[in-house]
Amino acid sequence: MATAEEMGKKQRSISVSEFFEKNRHLLGYDNKAKAMLIIVKEAVDNSLDACEEAGILPEIYIGIKQLSEEKYQIITRDNGPGIVREQVPKIFGSLLYGSKFHRLKQTRGQQGLGISCAVLYAQLTTGTPTSVKTSTGDGKTHSYQIRIDVAKNKPIIMETSIDEDGEQWHGVETMFTVEATYRENKQSVIEYIKQTAISNPYADIIFDSPNGRVEFKRGVSRLPPEPKEIMPHLEGVELGVLMRMLENTTARTVHSFLTSEFSRVGKQSANEIMLNAGLTKDINGQEVPDTKYKPSRVSDDQARNIIEAIKKVKLMRPPTDCLSPLGSELIESGLMKELNPEFTAAITRSPDVYRGWPFQIEVGLAFGGSIQGHNLLRFANRVPLLYQGGVCAITKAVNETDWKRYGIDMNKGNIEEPLIVFVHIASVWVPFTSESKEAIANYDVIVKEIKLAFQECARKLSAYLSGKRKSAMLSKKRSIFERYAGETASAISLITGIQKSEIKQMIMDLIDNKWEELNGDSVGEVEGENQEDGSGSSESDSDEEESEY
Amino acid sequence: MATAEEMGKKQRSISVSEFFEKNRHLLGYDNKAKAMLIIVKEAVDNSLDACEEAGILPEIYIGIKQLSEEKYQIITRDNGPGIVREQVPKIFGSLLYGSKFHRLKQTRGQQGLGISCAVLYAQLTTGTPTSVKTSTGDGKTHSYQIRIDVAKNKPIIMETSIDEDGEQWHGVETMFTVEATYRENKQSVIEYIKQTAISNPYADIIFDSPNGRVEFKRGVSRLPPEPKEIMPHLEGVELGVLMRMLENTTARTVHSFLTSEFSRVGKQSANEIMLNAGLTKDINGQEVPDTKYKPSRVSDDQARNIIEAIKKVKLMRPPTDCLSPLGSELIESGLMKELNPEFTAAITRSPDVYRGWPFQIEVGLAFGGSIQGHNLLRFANRVPLLYQGGVCAITKAVNETDWKRYGIDMNKGNIEEPLIVFVHIASVWVPFTSESKEAIANYDVIVKEIKLAFQECARKLSAYLSGKRKSAMLSKKRSIFERYAGETASAISLITGIQKSEIKQMIMDLIDNKWEELNGDSVGEVEGENQEDGSGSSESDSDEEESEY
Repeated sequence: MATAEEMGKKQRSISVSEFFEKNRHLLGYDNKAKAMLIIVKEAVDNSLDACEEAGILPEIYIGIKQLSEEKYQIITRDNGPGIVREQVPKIFGSLLYGSKFHRLKQTRGQQGLGISCAVLYAQLTTGTPTSVKTSTGDGKTHSYQIRIDVAKNKPIIMETSIDEDGEQWHGVETMFTVEATYRENKQSVIEYIKQTAISNPYADIIFDSPNGRVEFKRGVSRLPPEPKEIMPHLEGVELGVLMRMLENTTARTVHSFLTSEFSRVGKQSANEIMLNAGLTKDINGQEVPDTKYKPSRVSDDQARNIIEAIKKVKLMRPPTDCLSPLGSELIESGLMKELNPEFTAAITRSPDVYRGWPFQIEVGLAFGGSIQGHNLLRFANRVPLLYQGGVCAITKAVNETDWKRYGIDMNKGNIEEPLIVFVHIASVWVPFTSESKEAIANYDVIVKEIKLAFQECARKLSAYLSGKRKSAMLSKKRSIFERYAGETASAISLITGIQKSEIKQMIMDLIDNKWEELNGDSVGEVEGENQEDGSGSSESDSDEEESEY
Repeated sequence: MATAEEMGKKQRSISVSEFFEKNRHLLGYDNKAKAMLIIVKEAVDNSLDACEEAGILPEIYIGIKQLSEEKYQIITRDNGPGIVREQVPKIFGSLLYGSKFHRLKQTRGQQGLGISCAVLYAQLTTGTPTSVKTSTGDGKTHSYQIRIDVAKNKPIIMETSIDEDGEQWHGVETMFTVEATYRENKQSVIEYIKQTAISNPYADIIFDSPNGRVEFKRGVSRLPPEPKEIMPHLEGVELGVLMRMLENTTARTVHSFLTSEFSRVGKQSANEIMLNAGLTKDINGQEVPDTKYKPSRVSDDQARNIIEAIKKVKLMRPPTDCLSPLGSELIESGLMKELNPEFTAAITRSPDVYRGWPFQIEVGLAFGGSIQGHNLLRFANRVPLLYQGGVCAITKAVNETDWKRYGIDMNKGNIEEPLIVFVHIASVWVPFTSESKEAIANYDVIVKEIKLAFQECARKLSAYLSGKRKSAMLSKKRSIFERYAGETASAISLITGIQKSEIKQMIMDLIDNKWEELNGDSVGEVEGENQEDGSGSSESDSDEEESEY
């Protein structure tokens, strides 16, 4: 039996690489088909992030080559700004490293885990280092072969070369050699690229698949506005974090700390917080905020008082220019380009906030045309989510929406409604349910926003569908009328003595010219019915909408 | 717009503490009620692991005290071996630190994350350091106040004292001050403790809840056999790991590396692997394994060949003395003690293997008595799993089992069957779906083993139930018979002239003495029916069992 001393000898630290190597299913490496998808996704997501941050219209190349039964080479290339040479090994060769975790900014990556885990997976399954080439446009191309020292979570650079006479280009090229399988189903690389083309219609994507080349041309030639980085909002700051920020701040007073390191805290709000937290001084018998109070003087109890004080002070919501939604135009353009539907509608909701973090919901609907059956496309910060739909807030919102109210039958197995539902959540910090970033956590405020977006967008489709159904009804009436025009003409001819052919022509002219007018009543009726169902104008203000829940 | 240089300046490493602080929901800290449960669970799991490893019958104390509306003090204390002083800060004050991750041993903890994340949660929500007291039985008690330096993932020791004149004791006491809420529902501390008492019937547990004291007395006074640590099995070793092991081994030859660092590789198997991998030499024109080949000489390609060679060589399955199942006696004792049922049955399957790791399934059924309705109790390495049942392999296996075959109606909402289903998976590495360790991943071989265990155990319950139903039927027949005994006696008395009361007594004696005999046929019938349904003996060999699927 072991003693405390013997047990103590076995205690040691575990590197984050070791942890995720053993637990790679947490990052989505459950099976070989999924591994293929994740690696392409991590590389392309990084490429798109880099292009957008540098204001470059993305041109992405993806190549997948089969080496043996379950061994593939995955190549990705972008026209982004490139990576400065000293950062390359760290970005690819150590887990939990990157520029996105510590910033509040709407980006695809947010953990600093994805691309290095792809390198880890490659060396775990094929023992092969990952090849990275990059240039920042200075005529020099840097090439690396990178492995990860798993026990230390540090890069091992196997090979480096600098080509100084190289072409003038900028961007990053990666090559992973991995154990994987290639599929072309609903949760595959081709589906990911197709959906990426929908949510990033300003990107050119070329995909050399094992089955041949597929090109996705951009539909628009402008980038959406670059999202701004924001400061944290006090509403979402927890005590431990506040205490750490107070320790590390360079601000000379608590007052300036509050106004400079958080968003939406003006001098007046900072005064109120300090007053409520008891960080005050006495001036002529009056308690006023001590604006000279130093952060280093704040005790643990005073920090607690600040957190309590925040709850009592009404702060402005976080700024929302940190979010870059696609906008209805880009969404409709993406849906049109890739799905060729007969009708599209899209809306972008106003931003809302969860745990102090702004987020924004967009919904697009594409109906008819080349579409067959239902499908739900989920996106987070423009990245398609292909797995774990069952536990995702988006799926929950779809299931809890009363689509029949809008004349849409979403029952599974019903193939009458050819409808694609597109949902996009943009946020400075997307709350994923796991490291594999496949599903959105069920925050009430997020589910509610998605449902409101569905309602707003469904009303548009509903209006279109009721128009379509109306015109189908009218044309049916017309064909019945036409069928009897001959007999009617004969009868009238008999009574009036006018030529039958002449009367028939008159009837046909009447149908052609007066139909709309004659059926005016019924048009009104159909719209009226729909109005009742669709609960009125699509521009109803948010108070009304909230009262629906 | 940013350049590569500007982006490079923002790249930095993310500490594992920062990562899990921001992503604490990954460890289960989704809400305040769950936070309470997780902290108790992490501390008690560690206490039980330590007691068992030191061969001590566990005595666990848990105290929860409300400080303010959502602020609680959680105290745990054990009689384990204690922690040597230099390890205390690291164990409690840094994430990914511990003795269990690098070993293949059946323990409750396996990640080195749990207890330090509890410390992290305490400081995040209340800014309070965690208090730890420990003694290894040498008369000295070491006391610490520990925080975590989140940016560095290192402990900050706030206060230390040594009491050298203290009492002679050994064990660990922790005190967490956290924001949480206390509930007493199906997913609460009290339920966790109750289920822990079932799966650890050799532990004494005292719980001072905010609503008063509850004591769980041990039902047996012996520990189950201590599980042994094992070497990895080649079947589950991936190329990257093999390459790393070859680099780090102290073995002087590949041959001795294979036989000494893996389980179940004998000299003959090592020879075969080397021959298949081409690590050979020529002796008199014959290719034989080069048993002197040095690990440092193994190239990447040769390592690949070894992995391929392993697939061709038939290796013995991993040893199974690394597993310590509870055994049917302890399971039944636990179920009896806490649930007071009218019938229990339990079985322990033979071990099986997934990804080279041994695991073993146990199932217990408790029926009737004080039990009301159905319930499924899930356990992994003796720890109750209270959340995420929907995605757990155990739930999947329950749902896919045809319980009706065994005369058990498991339909939801049917309250006629008062049945508790207990499932325990023991493994050297339990495949959890997330860091929060709430659900078992759906490995086919695991789901299959659980189903076979259900079948085996359900047959026992089925036999009991059919016996019970038979006796219910007989007693119904008897009551009918008795009802007519009076009239029958009158009729016979009239014919024979014998006293009516005398004849009635004879009939009653007949019923009492000959009933079993007279109804012998129908007993056989019931058993025969059951035999057909229950597919024969419960000792059927595994080939037959497998063919059921």
